[in-house]
Amino acid sequence: MNLVNRRYHLAARPVGLPTSSDWRLDSVPVEEPRDGQFVVEVQYISLDPAMRGWMNEGKSYIAPVGIGEVMRAAAVGCVIASRHTGFAVGDQVSGTFGVQDYALSDGKGVVKVNPKLAPLPVYLGTLGMPGMTAYFGLLEVGELRNGDTVVVSAAAGAVGTVVGQIAKIRECRVVGIAGGADKCAWLVKELGFDAAIDYKAQDVKKALREHCPKGIDVYFDNVGGDILDSALTQLARGARIVICGAISQYNSTTPVKGPANYLSLLVNRASMKGMVVFDYAARYTEAVRELGGWLAAGRLKSREHIVTGLETFPEALLMLFRGENTGKLVLKV
Amino acid sequence: MNLVNRRYHLAARPVGLPTSSDWRLDSVPVEEPRDGQFVVEVQYISLDPAMRGWMNEGKSYIAPVGIGEVMRAAAVGCVIASRHTGFAVGDQVSGTFGVQDYALSDGKGVVKVNPKLAPLPVYLGTLGMPGMTAYFGLLEVGELRNGDTVVVSAAAGAVGTVVGQIAKIRECRVVGIAGGADKCAWLVKELGFDAAIDYKAQDVKKALREHCPKGIDVYFDNVGGDILDSALTQLARGARIVICGAISQYNSTTPVKGPANYLSLLVNRASMKGMVVFDYAARYTEAVRELGGWLAAGRLKSREHIVTGLETFPEALLMLFRGENTGKLVLKV
Repeated sequence: MNLVNRRYHLAARPVGLPTSSDWRLDSVPVEEPRDGQFVVEVQYISLDPAMRGWMNEGKSYIAPVGIGEVMRAAAVGCVIASRHTGFAVGDQVSGTFGVQDYALSDGKGVVKVNPKLAPLPVYLGTLGMPGMTAYFGLLEVGELRNGDTVVVSAAAGAVGTVVGQIAKIRECRVVGIAGGADKCAWLVKELGFDAAIDYKAQDVKKALREHCPKGIDVYFDNVGGDILDSALTQLARGARIVICGAISQYNSTTPVKGPANYLSLLVNRASMKGMVVFDYAARYTEAVRELGGWLAAGRLKSREHIVTGLETFPEALLMLFRGENTGKLVLKV
Repeated sequence: MNLVNRRYHLAARPVGLPTSSDWRLDSVPVEEPRDGQFVVEVQYISLDPAMRGWMNEGKSYIAPVGIGEVMRAAAVGCVIASRHTGFAVGDQVSGTFGVQDYALSDGKGVVKVNPKLAPLPVYLGTLGMPGMTAYFGLLEVGELRNGDTVVVSAAAGAVGTVVGQIAKIRECRVVGIAGGADKCAWLVKELGFDAAIDYKAQDVKKALREHCPKGIDVYFDNVGGDILDSALTQLARGARIVICGAISQYNSTTPVKGPANYLSLLVNRASMKGMVVFDYAARYTEAVRELGGWLAAGRLKSREHIVTGLETFPEALLMLFRGENTGKLVLKV
C-alpha cells in the first residue's frame, strides 16, 4: 500500500491544559495487514473529556497512554485491506483506532456499524460510548424512576444531551446546567429540557432551588467542582448522584476540589456512585437497540459538532475544556 | 413531689467547640404528672457526637434544639410517678429525656428496658442508638458481605466498636482507625480487630495500604476530613462508603473539607452513601434481638465510659471531640 499514516503520539504528560509540546506528529507508511489483521481508514475520531485522564500517569480505570504511544481514541472508519475472516474491505467499523489516519487491527474490540441506520459520527456519540454512558449511568447507576427530578451538568455535551433526553422520555423533570445562553436555549427549545441554567451567568444554587422545588432525585455529574457542591445543597431524600466525570478538575494544577457539601448525603440519605461505562459492555447491544429506536422515532435528537482535519487535533481537543462544543465533538479526518 | 430538677438549656449556638456560655443551668420543681403522663428519674444520659449537630441552626435530618430549650439527649431512667396506663412506677425506660435530672413524658418514643438482660448504660450504647447505627449502617447501607475487608474510623467509639465486632462475627478482615496506642491495642487484643491504625502517630494512607492489601470493601466513616480522604485512596472495586458522621468537622470554624479524592469512586465503581439511623426504627427490635444474642453469647463486648454528675455535662461532652472516651460515653446523673 502506498499510503502515508499521520499519527499523533503522546510526547509528554501535560501539566494543566495540554499544549503542542505534549504531542508529536509523525508520518509513516501504512503497513500491509498480516493474517488475521485488517487496515482501517479512519474517518471520524471521537474527542472525549476522558482522554485528558488517559494522558496522566497513575492508577485509574484504564492504563494511561504511554509516552511515545499513538494517542488512544475511539473512531469509526472503513476497512480498506483485510486478511481477517470477520472483516471485509468496505466494512464500516468502530473501534479504538487512535488519533491517526490509518489503523492496523486484529479485530479486538471492533464492531461493524451500519451507515444506513445513522450517520457515522452518531456511532461516536449517541450510539457510541457517550450514549452508552448516558444510558447505563442514568438508568442503572442513577436508578432512574419515572417522574424523578433529574439534573445533569455539561448538559449540552455528548453525554449530557442523551441523559436529559432519556429522562424526558421517562417522564422526568429535567434541568440542564451548561455554559452560555445559546446552549441553554437549545437545551430547552430543541431538546425539550424543562429548564437550563447558565452557570457562567447565573447563581447555580439559587437557580436549582427555583427549578427543583421538590429537590433533585438524580444528579448526573460530568463536571465536579463548584457545580457538584451546588447540586448537593438541593438533594431530595434518597437522591442518587452519578459520578461520571469531573471536567472542571481535569486540567487543574492545584489539588482536586472535594465536594465540601458531601454531608448532604447523610442529611438526605443520598448516595454518590462512580461509574465506568466499560462495565456494561455485555449490554451495549441492548442500549444501541433502544437508543436507535428512539432516534428513528424522532424522540431522541443527536447533535455532532464536527471539526475537520487530523492536524487540528491538539487545538480541537481543547474545545472540550473551553466549553466550545455543543453536542458530540468529532474530528473528521 | 418535693424534688428539684436541674436542667441544661442551650443558651447560644456555639462557634467551634461548645463553651460554658453556650449552656444555661437552672433548677425547677418537678411537676406532677397529669393524665397520660409519667415522671422519669434520669439515671444515665447518652453523650453523642451528633449532639453537636443538633446545636446548629439550619436544615438537617432533625430539627435543631431551640435556644432556651433543654438540651436533647437520649437517656435511661426509672419511672417514679405515673398517670399513664402503659408505664408503672419502677419501670426502667429509655427515651429522649434530655440533659436533666427528671423528665415528664407522655410515653412517645419511650421503650421499657430490662436491666436483668444488660446493665442500663448498655441500652444507650450497644443496645441503643449507637448499636442500631452500627448494625443497620454496616449490614444495610454498607451491604456487608462475609469476607469483606472493613475499615472503620472512630473505631474505639460507641459505633465503631460495634461495627468492627459485627464485621468480625461476619468473618471479615477488620481494620480500625483510632487515636492513641492504648485504644489501638484494646481494639486488637480485646475486641479482636485484625489491625488498628493510630492516626495520631501513623501515616494512615500507608498503613491502610499495608493492612488492606486487597483494598477496602466497606469503609464506615465517622470522622470525615483527612481520614476519609485516605480511605478513598485504598478502595477495592465496588467499595461502599457509609457516611455515618464527620466528627472531625463538627467543631470546625472553617468550611467543611470535602473529600478531594472522591474521584476514586469513579475509578473503583464505588459508592458513598449517607445514613440516619431513625429510618430503621421499625426494625430496632430485630437488631436488639441479634445484638443482645451476641452479647449474651460473649461474641460481642460492650464498653461504656462513665462520667459522673449532671453538672459535669458541658465538660464531659467535649471528651467526645477530644477523643478522650473509649467505648460509649455515658453521663451518670
